[in-house]
Amino acid sequence: MINKLMEKIKKTTAPIVVGLDPMLSFVPQHLLKQSYDAYGETLEGAADAIWQFNKGIIDSVCDLIPAVKPQIALYEQLGIEGLKAFQKTVDYCHEKDLVVIGDVKRGDIGSTSAAYATAHLGKVTVGSRQYTAFNEDFATVNPYFGIDGVQPFLDVCKEENKGLFILVKTSNPSGGEFQDRLIDGRPLYEHVGEKVAEWGNQHMGEDYSYIGAVVGATYPQAGKIMRKVMPKTLILVPGYGAQGGTGADLVHYFNEDGLGAIVNSSRGIIAAYKQEQYARFSPVNYADASRQAVLDMIADINGALQAAK
Amino acid sequence: MINKLMEKIKKTTAPIVVGLDPMLSFVPQHLLKQSYDAYGETLEGAADAIWQFNKGIIDSVCDLIPAVKPQIALYEQLGIEGLKAFQKTVDYCHEKDLVVIGDVKRGDIGSTSAAYATAHLGKVTVGSRQYTAFNEDFATVNPYFGIDGVQPFLDVCKEENKGLFILVKTSNPSGGEFQDRLIDGRPLYEHVGEKVAEWGNQHMGEDYSYIGAVVGATYPQAGKIMRKVMPKTLILVPGYGAQGGTGADLVHYFNEDGLGAIVNSSRGIIAAYKQEQYARFSPVNYADASRQAVLDMIADINGALQAAK
Repeated sequence: MINKLMEKIKKTTAPIVVGLDPMLSFVPQHLLKQSYDAYGETLEGAADAIWQFNKGIIDSVCDLIPAVKPQIALYEQLGIEGLKAFQKTVDYCHEKDLVVIGDVKRGDIGSTSAAYATAHLGKVTVGSRQYTAFNEDFATVNPYFGIDGVQPFLDVCKEENKGLFILVKTSNPSGGEFQDRLIDGRPLYEHVGEKVAEWGNQHMGEDYSYIGAVVGATYPQAGKIMRKVMPKTLILVPGYGAQGGTGADLVHYFNEDGLGAIVNSSRGIIAAYKQEQYARFSPVNYADASRQAVLDMIADINGALQAAK
Repeated sequence: MINKLMEKIKKTTAPIVVGLDPMLSFVPQHLLKQSYDAYGETLEGAADAIWQFNKGIIDSVCDLIPAVKPQIALYEQLGIEGLKAFQKTVDYCHEKDLVVIGDVKRGDIGSTSAAYATAHLGKVTVGSRQYTAFNEDFATVNPYFGIDGVQPFLDVCKEENKGLFILVKTSNPSGGEFQDRLIDGRPLYEHVGEKVAEWGNQHMGEDYSYIGAVVGATYPQAGKIMRKVMPKTLILVPGYGAQGGTGADLVHYFNEDGLGAIVNSSRGIIAAYKQEQYARFSPVNYADASRQAVLDMIADINGALQAAK
């Protein structure tokens, strides 16, 4: 799957991923009305609205991008109905040949991590049959448990040809509260990154490892260091756009081959129509605004990469 | 909710929690057959089997214990149907007046943590109405993101009168890989514990805080230290039984009032009928074996607490 992802990044010349993190407040009135008319102001109605919202965006941007990253929390808050919308979204993105990064940030002790790995990347055995549960291509994983919380994910990835992005340095303001604490003179996140590189070396694709890392766009110094610590690791970079990162901040997350990082934007793309910059698109044409925001993001990042050469 | 939990611990004299972590391999043949006959060897059939299995155990032990801790990963691996069984289990435990600790180990950047907090402890607004999604009483939370990953959970807890258990020192063998690394001469988990105590002081119940901590039974030295670092924190202790912890290991997790800790056992209780010790209970009477295992666990822990006085 890492090889497919790298190929798609080259083919689209778009080292970006669209975060499908739909809040109800992002969904335009005409879609909300349609869903509430059909199902009432219920969890089913809300889940239908975010599914319709997602579908519009996916249809509008799928030819431009290699991958999407649905954030499961936004679906989970709508309970079972929300998780059905998550599942529908994953399946629909697969139909459109998009790589799906399940942003689930799971992680637990070994036997429990095995169940999470099965849930998101693997197959579960029921009697004489096998089923997939959510069936993403990649999952994000929390490293706090150390290797035996990660190993079950590695095992399933090997079996299913899938991959991970392990949290190294997160994009949020208090990301440093524990991650920046110095251990033997270097921040915790650097130690985590070294482990990610080590685990990744044992699970190599063609040029990059199946085991990627998350390093936030909001900490460009960390990106620069981690690029060197993890040379064969694809870095998933959240925090572009709404959280404050710009293309120029991101050049050091990439390798000299122009690859090695994939930058996520969520609300900057999916709620683009709410920004002044895209106000010319009315809410009815929200998906066209998202398409324009994707084109602008690709131009921003590729422009910064060119300028840095 | 922390006050209710503490009252129930006193009333039952059982500082324990039963981990409802059902694997299909734990479910006796007669229940599997019944569910597969009704729904086929499908995810629906598997989810029905674990729900029936849970129900039997809950009915059998609910008068003995203050709380249960369903581990969501085991349900998530069965997809939507599994999560319906999780939801049914939570609701049924509430009917039986048990406190429900959702072992979900969620955690993310602020806005995403807010969605997880809503999903597990809060209410989601849909148009003019409000709904609960999974509606547990407590949730376990991963601290890797620092305070702004935790704050949205704290906010929802305050509003809904619910609580958290934040991971400090986990019970797994590689729990120390990052958690034990020394920062200013003390392990990372101790720094996390200090923060938990600090956050907890701002969210006090009567004697204990709404904000608890997870410290594994398999590291009794850590338990001893953390008891002092977090005097008003209820410690949720996984790792008893199947993972190797015994009652004698646990006395230092408790305060002098005999309270302050709640010990979890999962497979040691729910799959008790598979152990030699309880082989006299046939698989058909698996729930009676679980009841006996609960009684034995209560006696072990209370005995150790008495002996330590």
